[in-house]
Amino acid sequence: MATDSIRKCWRRLFSCLSFNRNSNETVRVPLLRSSQHGGHNVVSNKDYESLDYDRCWNKPYLDYRERYEKQHSDRKLEILQWIMTFAIGFLTGMVALYIDLIVKLLSDWKFGTVDKSILQCSKDGCLVISLLYLLLFNVAFVIVAACLTIYEPVAGGSGIPEIKCYLNGIKIPRIARLQTLVAKSVGVLFSVAGGLFVGKEGPMIHSGAIIGSGLPQLQSITLKKINSKYSYFRTDRDKRDFVSGGAAAGVAAAFGAPIGGVLFSLEEGSSFWNQKLTWRTFFCSMAATFSLNFFLSGIDSNSWGYFYLPGLIDFGTFECQSEKTTGCHLWSAVDLFIFVIMGFIGGCLGAIFNTLNKSLSLHRMINVNPKHKIFRLLEAILVAMVTTTIAFVSAMTLGQCRKIPLKPSIINSTRSSVELTVRDYFCEDGYYNDMATLFFNPQEIAIKQLFHQAGTFSMPSLAIFFILFFFLACWTYGVSVPSGLFVPSLLCGAAYGRFVALFLEQVFGYKTVYSGTYALVGAAAFLGGVVRMTISLTVILIESTNEISYGLPIMLVLMVAKWSGDLFNEGLYDIHINLKSVPLLEWDPPTEAARMKAKAIMDSRLKVVFPQTRVASLIRLLKTTAHNVFPVVTAARDDCSAVTLVGPSQEADLQEQDDVECFVNQNNSNQDGDGNPIELLQRNLPMKFEGMILRSQLVTLLKNHAWYKENVEEPPRDTVSYEEFITDYPRYPDIYDLQIPTLDGEALVDVGAYLNPCPYTVYPETTVSQVFHLFRGMGLRHLPVVCHKGELKGIITRHNLTHEFLEEKIHEQNQEH
Amino acid sequence: MATDSIRKCWRRLFSCLSFNRNSNETVRVPLLRSSQHGGHNVVSNKDYESLDYDRCWNKPYLDYRERYEKQHSDRKLEILQWIMTFAIGFLTGMVALYIDLIVKLLSDWKFGTVDKSILQCSKDGCLVISLLYLLLFNVAFVIVAACLTIYEPVAGGSGIPEIKCYLNGIKIPRIARLQTLVAKSVGVLFSVAGGLFVGKEGPMIHSGAIIGSGLPQLQSITLKKINSKYSYFRTDRDKRDFVSGGAAAGVAAAFGAPIGGVLFSLEEGSSFWNQKLTWRTFFCSMAATFSLNFFLSGIDSNSWGYFYLPGLIDFGTFECQSEKTTGCHLWSAVDLFIFVIMGFIGGCLGAIFNTLNKSLSLHRMINVNPKHKIFRLLEAILVAMVTTTIAFVSAMTLGQCRKIPLKPSIINSTRSSVELTVRDYFCEDGYYNDMATLFFNPQEIAIKQLFHQAGTFSMPSLAIFFILFFFLACWTYGVSVPSGLFVPSLLCGAAYGRFVALFLEQVFGYKTVYSGTYALVGAAAFLGGVVRMTISLTVILIESTNEISYGLPIMLVLMVAKWSGDLFNEGLYDIHINLKSVPLLEWDPPTEAARMKAKAIMDSRLKVVFPQTRVASLIRLLKTTAHNVFPVVTAARDDCSAVTLVGPSQEADLQEQDDVECFVNQNNSNQDGDGNPIELLQRNLPMKFEGMILRSQLVTLLKNHAWYKENVEEPPRDTVSYEEFITDYPRYPDIYDLQIPTLDGEALVDVGAYLNPCPYTVYPETTVSQVFHLFRGMGLRHLPVVCHKGELKGIITRHNLTHEFLEEKIHEQNQEH
Repeated sequence: MATDSIRKCWRRLFSCLSFNRNSNETVRVPLLRSSQHGGHNVVSNKDYESLDYDRCWNKPYLDYRERYEKQHSDRKLEILQWIMTFAIGFLTGMVALYIDLIVKLLSDWKFGTVDKSILQCSKDGCLVISLLYLLLFNVAFVIVAACLTIYEPVAGGSGIPEIKCYLNGIKIPRIARLQTLVAKSVGVLFSVAGGLFVGKEGPMIHSGAIIGSGLPQLQSITLKKINSKYSYFRTDRDKRDFVSGGAAAGVAAAFGAPIGGVLFSLEEGSSFWNQKLTWRTFFCSMAATFSLNFFLSGIDSNSWGYFYLPGLIDFGTFECQSEKTTGCHLWSAVDLFIFVIMGFIGGCLGAIFNTLNKSLSLHRMINVNPKHKIFRLLEAILVAMVTTTIAFVSAMTLGQCRKIPLKPSIINSTRSSVELTVRDYFCEDGYYNDMATLFFNPQEIAIKQLFHQAGTFSMPSLAIFFILFFFLACWTYGVSVPSGLFVPSLLCGAAYGRFVALFLEQVFGYKTVYSGTYALVGAAAFLGGVVRMTISLTVILIESTNEISYGLPIMLVLMVAKWSGDLFNEGLYDIHINLKSVPLLEWDPPTEAARMKAKAIMDSRLKVVFPQTRVASLIRLLKTTAHNVFPVVTAARDDCSAVTLVGPSQEADLQEQDDVECFVNQNNSNQDGDGNPIELLQRNLPMKFEGMILRSQLVTLLKNHAWYKENVEEPPRDTVSYEEFITDYPRYPDIYDLQIPTLDGEALVDVGAYLNPCPYTVYPETTVSQVFHLFRGMGLRHLPVVCHKGELKGIITRHNLTHEFLEEKIHEQNQEH
Repeated sequence: MATDSIRKCWRRLFSCLSFNRNSNETVRVPLLRSSQHGGHNVVSNKDYESLDYDRCWNKPYLDYRERYEKQHSDRKLEILQWIMTFAIGFLTGMVALYIDLIVKLLSDWKFGTVDKSILQCSKDGCLVISLLYLLLFNVAFVIVAACLTIYEPVAGGSGIPEIKCYLNGIKIPRIARLQTLVAKSVGVLFSVAGGLFVGKEGPMIHSGAIIGSGLPQLQSITLKKINSKYSYFRTDRDKRDFVSGGAAAGVAAAFGAPIGGVLFSLEEGSSFWNQKLTWRTFFCSMAATFSLNFFLSGIDSNSWGYFYLPGLIDFGTFECQSEKTTGCHLWSAVDLFIFVIMGFIGGCLGAIFNTLNKSLSLHRMINVNPKHKIFRLLEAILVAMVTTTIAFVSAMTLGQCRKIPLKPSIINSTRSSVELTVRDYFCEDGYYNDMATLFFNPQEIAIKQLFHQAGTFSMPSLAIFFILFFFLACWTYGVSVPSGLFVPSLLCGAAYGRFVALFLEQVFGYKTVYSGTYALVGAAAFLGGVVRMTISLTVILIESTNEISYGLPIMLVLMVAKWSGDLFNEGLYDIHINLKSVPLLEWDPPTEAARMKAKAIMDSRLKVVFPQTRVASLIRLLKTTAHNVFPVVTAARDDCSAVTLVGPSQEADLQEQDDVECFVNQNNSNQDGDGNPIELLQRNLPMKFEGMILRSQLVTLLKNHAWYKENVEEPPRDTVSYEEFITDYPRYPDIYDLQIPTLDGEALVDVGAYLNPCPYTVYPETTVSQVFHLFRGMGLRHLPVVCHKGELKGIITRHNLTHEFLEEKIHEQNQEH
């Protein structure tokens, strides 16, 4: 209960604050309602259209299926899918490879110059010049990254929130374009090489998703020249399946974790489980992991044809140093209890991180006008300068010089041995600076050192490093550069874990079995506290360590960290999704929703069309509303009890009553004059539900001039084919852009031939819980509410099912009682 | 296309053959249709009731929710669920531990005696006596196992097909009882110790599932004394969630593969993905793995508090012997091509195995009367004797004596070192018998030897071992003893893989990177060919080897093996499910189903009730039909177009027309005399759909005397509460067992107050593809078909959606055109 009330408080606070942004609208305005307020809101809500996972089984599609089945064997499409899947995995692996290599190159260049200068200046006392060198490099790199991000704002951040939204069924504009891929994958090179506390893994996942989304289309909106007639996978459904695969491949390449990748795309996205799809996703992950592995192993040791470097991050083999007689242990039952406490603290730390980052992001959103791009650039430069200076100065003044161990610190990687570099800045020969080793190594190397190097960091250094890194990383995430969150969180958490191990040893005299385990557990605890992922994160970490026996501690710690973090706020990805007021659907509806009915949440202000509609009316309808779907109705012949089309939830705003009109006309020969929808609506007459038609379909019909003269010809059957409907996928022309010849008013469109006659429907008395599971489980976009008599009562969209909307409704309902 | 036709041929052949079993019924008789033929079929079809994953949101349940929410916090139930989940995992781990320990004990006892005798007799030349000793032990052990299985037949086999059916949504009687658990877990000790070629892993998974199903109920049907009033989880939905957890825990304990366990229960069962449930399942797996691990590690080396033995099967660490400079490789790109071929052959071998086993099982079903239990016992004894004799004689005569290597063959287990025992039967001192080493070691040890011992087996020995083991294992699976399939298949496949490695080396001179990899790949190929699992099997094998870099070869091989096996037949589990004619729902409907409509497959012979029904009519209805659900209808007030209640698919059998009557009466005050259902049906009048009521609910209403006097009293509201409805869960009383006082004919039951008013429905024109996904995705049991006017047209159950039924319908449809 405490959790709920704390979270509710937060939500209320932020829904107040976010009021400022959306001019005069509250955050969660459902599409259908908001569109009645005029132009400017329509656009902002149109930003978040739903994807349609359910196929539209209308007549053109069924005809297409029949034709297709006659021409092709079942196998062809399946083989194509597998080839595409492999290509996505392979390309994602290649993108990861290129990012890894270029980042290394840039870093080597930078550190090569700076190292030399420091070595020189430590003697000559001109360290300010070294700092200036470093600043010059870092600021220059960050400027490149920031400029790319400002040019293509969707490329900022980690991209994981956006992927999560996409897989949840929300179309986010520009998220999956070729130019976003370029901006992201080039930008991340420079933000990582620029010494910012960001990771390259999130952007890699985003890159994989873009490849998954774009490649099977064989066309590009950025480069209009890339366009083929090949149109097998041009539906939201197919696209989303490939995006799942691409995202999984991204995780797989980044962490060498193919199983974790599959679970990531399941956990973040899917609402259903399909064996075939999951197996294909897994194949995609494997293709990414092992194509990366192949090239990385080849380039690394020039032994082509072998596969031993499992991914970009490799935590190395945890090899215990204990005596062999009783077997080798990495942790004991006693440690488990300490891990639970560490998990709790990690969750709290994560919650603090999230709260700070949320306030910062909110501050940015409210105070920085998106048009003033220069501010965003300046902030990025400022972050780069502050980060560099703090790292440099703290290493110089606060780091401890420690003796370099005689035997070189070789850490067995999973299948190869890598020597870890310590940084000897500001120290005598034979000594190294522990703070500099953490700050000036690539983050992956620093993590490995915390995991494996026993006794090489002092407690004060770890504590200072943790605090500085914590705040700087918090500031950085949200600056407009491509910036992952995984690896910085792991590094931060590893320092925390290592600190705990030292603390236990030095203060309580408790000798831990293996201090690397503590670093790993600390990393898991902090990362878990920040992102609140469960099963996929566990598996990613198990796979990265290649050590199944870490399963229990990692799971336990993530569970506790998620629980303790959830007491205060949500995961960071969810926070950023909420800040953008994206209508994300959670896993389950609120428990109180069981007592609510569909009729309480549905939108009952409807814009309907009749099976035969005048062209002029259709154009007017499309131009004046932003709805993406229109129910098709006929007048019911018997006058049953009166139907209130203005639903109970909207009685209050009567001044908008005039909006509830229907811009349609009808020419259904069954009706003799009294079936005019306006009349139906005004007289509250029942409307028999016939089916649904999408805006995109209506636009395509108009574009293809699919009309006929009233009372002159028979309605033409099937003049517009399925292929014509998907030609413009995914961006259908705007109604304003259509060239429609002037017609005499009698032309009619035979909507009835193209509607989806049998969508899933629910009853007005269906509980919200059932509605929610149907909507989420089937991946719907619109759900008509039809009463037991077959009359249309309303429509439910994603906006009517978000937790915020439902909680408000529950609140209203409770107040009524 | 070839695949399909081959498989269809098989299916037709077997549907003809299986005709013998079901007296005079074809195999796939849908519940609603079959019930019209009389008593004996009703029983056989009742065997396969569906489970209901969708909650029944009727009034009593809503009231209960409201009451519950007022009394309890949200958290309580969640905490209870987690505690239960932990308990299930822990107990499953303990069962695995007990099985493992006792099997070891029994084996040690047996081999202790036999070893001594062989040592003695090798000198004295009395090896027949040693064989007799061995026979005595094995036959005695197998008799125990067989007797337990004959006493409780569901305990036979691996139990995985049954679990798969259960998770698919089919209730299989006796599958989850305490006495089944006892029979299975005791029986498997003796079948494994009895030297049969069976594994203990399948039974372990079944045990886990039983614990998952039984424990949260806190009652037992076997021991009626165990019964508590505690009734939180007494719905199909909750139970199935726990069974998923239990099955996952079983896999996790058996293979030390917690992630594989979760994926197993997802792949075999779930049709949807829920983050919370998956996380809980994962927790259950982890609890099982690590509680087993804790005790095993403690008992093994007496070092309590550590966790290093990851599961019952442990394939040991694959440590390459190649030079360290270029890193360590376990396989190369060239090997991959060979693996693909091995996968293909493995798939074919698996298909042969399955075909043979299918013919054998069919032979058993047709020729052995289930009542003649003695035959089943004799067969088990025969198998035990033949297996023992063949193993003994072939080891004696065909095995090669090879020199025992000087340094002991220690294989590093994941975290401990185990010395592998070679068997020196029939050889001189310092030599061992390679065939005996394979036959007379526990299968897990034999697998480890094939995986790790380089060059210790001769090609002829491997070939002979493979052939003998293949046929004996094929015969054994299906004999009435508890018998797993995983480990025998792995052993058989490992011999095949090792043979390939030797073959390549000796014939082509191709030096494999690491011959253990070939054994592993061979094991995966053969097991994949037999069971045709995909992602879960891959993950289980990766986890068992604790080597992430085997991901690619294992996945590739399983993919190819599944594909090549699928050319010929289905996986063995599916074959056994089909043999029992269980109406399992596949992942997707046949592609042709896209062109079919719901009205073509629905059952339109309906037995309906009215909202107010006479008690006598209800009793008659329940006694004369076996339906598990009854639609509730009222007469539609307007006479729209006539509705044909005898659907188009049944016009042929007109002699059954008289069956289409309604044993109901009605007293709906809205109707004035002409609403009699019989009349409705005879006059083909439309029936307005009001909701659904379950047989169990009607029985409960009658049991609780929930009726009122006609025209005397008001219908009483809510006299039967939700708690009363679930008192008898899961076995509701039979209508014949109810004690109903004699009433004057006017008592009525207010069915309307207890019906589920808003189930999911579909239109008659909805495509079968949509229907299928709704039914499977939401885990439904009954799906009413309601037309756009709100009139009930038919009902779809699981039987109308099996591939066999749909393919027949498609066939009919194609013939019509």
